[in-house]
Order: sequence, then structure tokens, then C-alpha cells
Amino acid sequence: MTKQELVRQIFLKESFLCVGLDPDLEKIPAHLREQDDPIFAFNKQIIDATLPYAVAYKPNTAFYEALGAKGWEALEKTIRYIPKECFIIADAKRGDIGNTSKAYAKTFFETLPCDAITVAPYMGKDSVVPFLEFENKWAIVLALTSNEGASDFQSKTDEFGIPLYKKVISTVKEWGSQNNLMFVAGATRTQQLREIRELIPKHFLLVPGVGTQGGELSEVIEAAATPECGLLVNASRSIIYASSGGDFAAAAKKEALKIKTQMGFYFQRPKT
Amino acid sequence: MTKQELVRQIFLKESFLCVGLDPDLEKIPAHLREQDDPIFAFNKQIIDATLPYAVAYKPNTAFYEALGAKGWEALEKTIRYIPKECFIIADAKRGDIGNTSKAYAKTFFETLPCDAITVAPYMGKDSVVPFLEFENKWAIVLALTSNEGASDFQSKTDEFGIPLYKKVISTVKEWGSQNNLMFVAGATRTQQLREIRELIPKHFLLVPGVGTQGGELSEVIEAAATPECGLLVNASRSIIYASSGGDFAAAAKKEALKIKTQMGFYFQRPKT
Repeated sequence: MTKQELVRQIFLKESFLCVGLDPDLEKIPAHLREQDDPIFAFNKQIIDATLPYAVAYKPNTAFYEALGAKGWEALEKTIRYIPKECFIIADAKRGDIGNTSKAYAKTFFETLPCDAITVAPYMGKDSVVPFLEFENKWAIVLALTSNEGASDFQSKTDEFGIPLYKKVISTVKEWGSQNNLMFVAGATRTQQLREIRELIPKHFLLVPGVGTQGGELSEVIEAAATPECGLLVNASRSIIYASSGGDFAAAAKKEALKIKTQMGFYFQRPKT
Repeated sequence: MTKQELVRQIFLKESFLCVGLDPDLEKIPAHLREQDDPIFAFNKQIIDATLPYAVAYKPNTAFYEALGAKGWEALEKTIRYIPKECFIIADAKRGDIGNTSKAYAKTFFETLPCDAITVAPYMGKDSVVPFLEFENKWAIVLALTSNEGASDFQSKTDEFGIPLYKKVISTVKEWGSQNNLMFVAGATRTQQLREIRELIPKHFLLVPGVGTQGGELSEVIEAAATPECGLLVNASRSIIYASSGGDFAAAAKKEALKIKTQMGFYFQRPKT
């Protein structure tokens, strides 16, 4: 998907919500576990329910791989089920030497019809560039994540006082453009979001950490929204596990609508 | 596998060779492509041929995922085919927020019988620790990789002149022990290998970059071998693609023997 089309979808739905599809057999409603493919059955209903309010879906590959080949089949079916107007992110956090990253890129961009894959930057340029060589496909590079461990390395400063996550952004942005590169920046760190936006005024940010992890949506918008929106805000557990009963899809829909409504703050405010 | 058992296997075989199983459908011998599961057929012969000279096998998940669910099946069959006395490394370079890393750990340690998984450190403590909570299982954390991109972030120094890869080692080693943690350190960087060994005198290192990537085995031994060996040296393409003809397994065996013979330098030198 092109940036232009993504922006169009966001303004059409008045939403920049990304729904994280992280299904866990132990957490999905009991009645689904009797089905032939419980994970796909769960995802299908979550997607159907949240589609009016979400512009993107983000399956995290870990939850599928945990089930072996059967899980990988559920992942494939899920990705193929998501309507084409949605932006599909394989949350895989891959990154390896060149020929290996190329294999990963083929997996998610050719074998599967994903629009984007999340990429870990630690191994440097030749581990990231293979993901940037596919037309209208995206690499979403980890910069500042929403978890506690982000302070272990990402926030550590170099001899000039620059934290690693900023070094990652300013280095990686030279390898691609605002049309094939996004960055992960956690919602739990508003001040840093503001500084990241100064570094990259036009790139999209994938923002996890709203909901279960505790970030505030209005603060994220104030800190980092652009005239083209420039944000994909992800919520996973708060939506997909909103209820563990037979009403899980309705509860997910309600939760997605709640977030979508909060996003109105962006769409309805006076444009500058 | 325990450290003690790994060391026993190394001295039994007089080898610390790890064979990287990175099969690419375009590179494996043409006659195998007609088989029902060409990747497994290829791996099976490579394993049978190299078994006398290798103590570890390291399938890189990228090459299996590239083939979808069928590739994942080939990965499972391959891992289950490797004899129990070998150390099995899932080269997956995973690392995510806590509950997600836990899902990955279950995949490779419970669904599959791997001994170790490679882990990217960028997301910090809660992304690594879930891999350390399984008895006799290992996390092999990326420190200094063998590729060109290693200089982009891993070698960058902080305000005290300490490069990131050393910061990673000295931080991560506190999260586990020499009995469940190894580090990746590329063979292409001998001086740094020496410095890494000073930081962690007893931990095992997984050393890629010998062979196709150009590192010299004798230099690696001089720089980083310990009384318990302390090294797993990986070769992938130079072994598995030693020939693209019907003799590929014999050629792989010959290449593995060549490396194993060079390793004699460690086993036959006077012990200090």
C-alpha cells in the first residue's frame, strides 16, 4: 500500500487504529477451542467486528509460531482474510544478515500479502535494506519501544549525549524514505515522541502501548500527529480480550469504537 | 542440554563445528526438487553426512518461513531428525515484549525440542529473560555480528568510549549465567573477540562468519578459546552448498571434515 492510500483510508474511516491480532489459545473463548482452526475462527470474528473502526491489522508472528505448522496456517489464513483496504503489518521484529533478511522479506511480502514488517535495527544497514526493496511495501523499524526494557539500551546515550533510539532513527531514515519506512515509538513516552517527531516530521510512526500498557491517546496525538496523521496506534489485548465469553466479538467492537471515538480529537480539531 | 554435556560432546568429537541449515529451494540440487519435501530431504542428507564432525546444528528460521506452512513443517521435521546428542540452535533472532518473547520461547523450547534460540537484545531485559526461564535451555544473544552493518550501531561508543556490543554483553550477562547464556560474536573481528573473551571468560560464544564470510578459524581459537573450548563455530553456505550436484552430501561431508581438521589446532595444542 502506498502512503497516499494509507492516508486516504485513515481520513475515510476517521481512525488510525491498528488492531493487534495476538491470539493465545489459553485466552480465547472456550467455545472456539472445539473448532478445527480456533485461532482463525477467533481472528475472523475480531476482524469482522472491528473493521469499521480499524485501518490496520498487526498479527504478531510469535503467537502463531507457538502452535507450529498449524499456527503458521492460521497466520496465512488470517492475513489473506483481512480486506485489501486495510494495512497489514507482520509484527515479526526480524533482522538478519543480508541474504537472510531477504528470505524474511520474501516470506511476508511475496508468499504472504503483507504491507509491512517490523524490523529490529541491531544488525545495521544490510539487515534492514532488503525489506526496502519491494514496491509499496514497508519496513517498520524499532526505535523506542513501549516496554520497560527500552531503557536498557535504547535510551543509553553516546559521547554526544544522543540516545541510541535517536541514532537509530537518524541513521535508518537515510536508507529509505517516508514512503517505505516507519518507526516504532511507544505511547508510554510522550516527551520522547515529541523529540522523535522533530527528527522525522513526515514519517509514519507505529505506536504501541495504548490500552493494556497504559499510554494516553490524547497525549500521543498532541505529541506526534501530523497533517497527514502520521500515526498508526496499536491496541492488542485491550481489544481482542475485552471479553472472554460468547460476546467477545461485540466487546472487541465496543472497545475499538471507544478508541476510534477518542481519535476524533485529531479529526475534529481545527487544522493548522 | 547442559553446558557440561555440550563440553563433553565437543571433546568426544574433537569438534566445535555448528552446521547452519539454511536451505534455499533455488540452491539445493535439482534432483531433490521433485521430492515431496525437498528441504527436509536435503537437510536429512546434510545431517547424515556431517554428523561425525559437527556438535551443533543451526537452522535459520527465515529459510523455512519463506515457504509458508510447508516450510514450517520442514523445519519441525528437521529439528526432530537431528540426533539428541547434538546441540540444536533455532537461529531466529527473536526478541519482543515479555508475553510475546514467552510465546517464542514456548515455540522453540516446548513445541520444538531446540536447545537454544538466538535473541536480539534491542528491546532489553524483559525481551530476553523469558528465554532464560527454561531448564537446560539457552538464549544466544547477539553482541557483535559478522556482517557489515555491525558497524552501524553495535560498534558505536557511549560517553565512556564503550561500544554498544560490550554494553550489551556486560548488561545481559547479569540476567543469566554461563549455563543458560551465550553470545554471538563474529569471526571477522579477531581483536574484538579477544576483548569479548576478557569480559566473559567462561561463557560460550557462537561464532558465525567462518567460511563464506571470510573469518580465519585459527585466529578465532587464539583469540577466544577457553579450557572448556567455549566456542561453537558456525559454517552454513560453505558446507551445505559445497556442491550443487548429486554429490552434495559427500561434498558437505568433505568440507565439514576440513573445518573439523582445522579445529585440531585447539585439541592438539599443549594445555596451559
